[in-house]
Amino acid sequence: METLQWQGGVDGHLVLIDQTKLPERCDQLACTDAQQVWEAIKWLRVRGAPAIGIAAAYGMVLGVRQHTSLDRTRFRQQLAEVADLLASSRPTAVNLFWAIRRLRACAERQASDVSNRAIVEALLAEARAIHEEDRVMCHAIGRHGAELLEDGMGVLTHCNAGGLATSEYGTALSVIYTAQDQGKRIRVYADETRPLLQGARLTTWELMQRNVDVTLICDSMAAQVMREGRVQAVLTGADRIAANGDAANKIGTYAVALLAQAHAVPFYVAAPSSTFDLSLAAGDQIPIEQRDDEEVTCGMGVRTAPRGVKVYNPAFDVTPSALIRAIVCEHGIIQPVNASSVAATVARK
Amino acid sequence: METLQWQGGVDGHLVLIDQTKLPERCDQLACTDAQQVWEAIKWLRVRGAPAIGIAAAYGMVLGVRQHTSLDRTRFRQQLAEVADLLASSRPTAVNLFWAIRRLRACAERQASDVSNRAIVEALLAEARAIHEEDRVMCHAIGRHGAELLEDGMGVLTHCNAGGLATSEYGTALSVIYTAQDQGKRIRVYADETRPLLQGARLTTWELMQRNVDVTLICDSMAAQVMREGRVQAVLTGADRIAANGDAANKIGTYAVALLAQAHAVPFYVAAPSSTFDLSLAAGDQIPIEQRDDEEVTCGMGVRTAPRGVKVYNPAFDVTPSALIRAIVCEHGIIQPVNASSVAATVARK
Repeated sequence: METLQWQGGVDGHLVLIDQTKLPERCDQLACTDAQQVWEAIKWLRVRGAPAIGIAAAYGMVLGVRQHTSLDRTRFRQQLAEVADLLASSRPTAVNLFWAIRRLRACAERQASDVSNRAIVEALLAEARAIHEEDRVMCHAIGRHGAELLEDGMGVLTHCNAGGLATSEYGTALSVIYTAQDQGKRIRVYADETRPLLQGARLTTWELMQRNVDVTLICDSMAAQVMREGRVQAVLTGADRIAANGDAANKIGTYAVALLAQAHAVPFYVAAPSSTFDLSLAAGDQIPIEQRDDEEVTCGMGVRTAPRGVKVYNPAFDVTPSALIRAIVCEHGIIQPVNASSVAATVARK
Repeated sequence: METLQWQGGVDGHLVLIDQTKLPERCDQLACTDAQQVWEAIKWLRVRGAPAIGIAAAYGMVLGVRQHTSLDRTRFRQQLAEVADLLASSRPTAVNLFWAIRRLRACAERQASDVSNRAIVEALLAEARAIHEEDRVMCHAIGRHGAELLEDGMGVLTHCNAGGLATSEYGTALSVIYTAQDQGKRIRVYADETRPLLQGARLTTWELMQRNVDVTLICDSMAAQVMREGRVQAVLTGADRIAANGDAANKIGTYAVALLAQAHAVPFYVAAPSSTFDLSLAAGDQIPIEQRDDEEVTCGMGVRTAPRGVKVYNPAFDVTPSALIRAIVCEHGIIQPVNASSVAATVARK
């Protein structure tokens, strides 16, 4: 089952896995207009930067295709309104704005004498291209990263850098899926990833869907799992990587990297080259978002801490490049990780 | 409010905080017979080895005091039955058996010509003695340990080694309470302690009751808290300590010790001398209990992982003595931690 799927032609629709229902149910949600896509992004039914971008691109198609009978000016107006609507769904999602801009640029590129219907067809082709490019990129990450994994290895992962956040194979999990496709037997230990439990809810679910041998642990058990020799590699995604290779990712990643170092287990990051922000020299320039107390005190909808307790809830931490054995991106493996190796690989983009 | 309290004389009763209701409610539970004490221990309304021992001792009094009109043989029989009942409440609780044995020995010490009523009075005095000895021991741990803490320090703790598990001040938390009593301002960061959340539910609650500045974090945030310089010490309890100082404690403690080392933050253990098991040369001889999958997959009563997912759920881990800067017990501070310093301090007992 795919995270996102466009079914049919210009008159078709977008089908999403409703991720808010996982892991108890795997409901598919059909979106036939832009408003439904807006709601799906807003309420986290679709999540993960690449997946949000793809959904928004298809949302643009859905938002204009009934308006082909309008004159060109009003059709363009409609396109702008749909773009504004979709952009308001998740105010900080970079891929969302990027995908919407790309669809608008596509419309503007069309000659003035083509029909509105032909513009919608061009928009659908562009959305499909965004979708396909993401798929190709994830597979490239998987192909490069699979070189790092050997048959019989145990791999620890944190949070969800899988297909549910992207088009198909994901980033960190693409490495595991690809290794498995190559016939390597990989055992995965998935950190549950408090406070929002993406590891427990999403990573275990999608690994089980693809018949990967996965064992769920609490975040506090990772050191014990390493000590017992159960894992030979740690593999995570990244949200933002500085020019020197310092990588921001879900809170707890830095701890896992330190624990891996203490047990001489290599720590790998897998992320697309678009994750690199070369304007930041080092990771200490990456701002750390603080999130709501309730994520910690009312995890799973049940109150588990005293009312009024102070909470510290950073959403991310930064793993210094010195703790990262290699970064895998669609262009190859960056190893050792430092400013010059990052520049050499990411500049190729 | 005290974890356990005997109210009145021989005809009085035991009052417990019902810890299953924390942190949402602080209900007190009055136990007037041994069956109620059995239920309170069985259903974790009272928990923590020392607190269970104290509760069972008072339970012995409650179980025999209505039977003073029996002849001595049948009174002794009743005493044995109550002992068996209470011993069946938590089958692996060492302090429980120890307290019951101590109460039975007390009864057997009584001269044959004293009344049954006088024996019950002697049993109550013995139960009070166990309670008071625990209180004195916790305060001694607090007094020694407080030397390690300075005004203004941040202290990270894991799980609950506080008054809720003991008579009053607890072990690790006694150090913090005593430092605060001395006028030192201590800021505490409490790991929530997955899977059972003793840190979120109990540690924050009791620290707030005593007006200690406490901040709740997820276990995965400890490294970030250290990196930001928010804590100058880590302080935990222990369940069992080997002769060389290796310490078994709640899962996640070993990880915290490694993270503390990586940030040059001293890691301290506070535990009574009864926690040492000198028959074990090193921590690798301490068996690690594996617990139910549901603690991880259905934390807080809500299912958060796919049905059928494999789970690894070790209840404890072992922190090697090389990572422990000092162990605080009621006899003083063991520092450095090794077989000879342990023998020198614990032998004094």
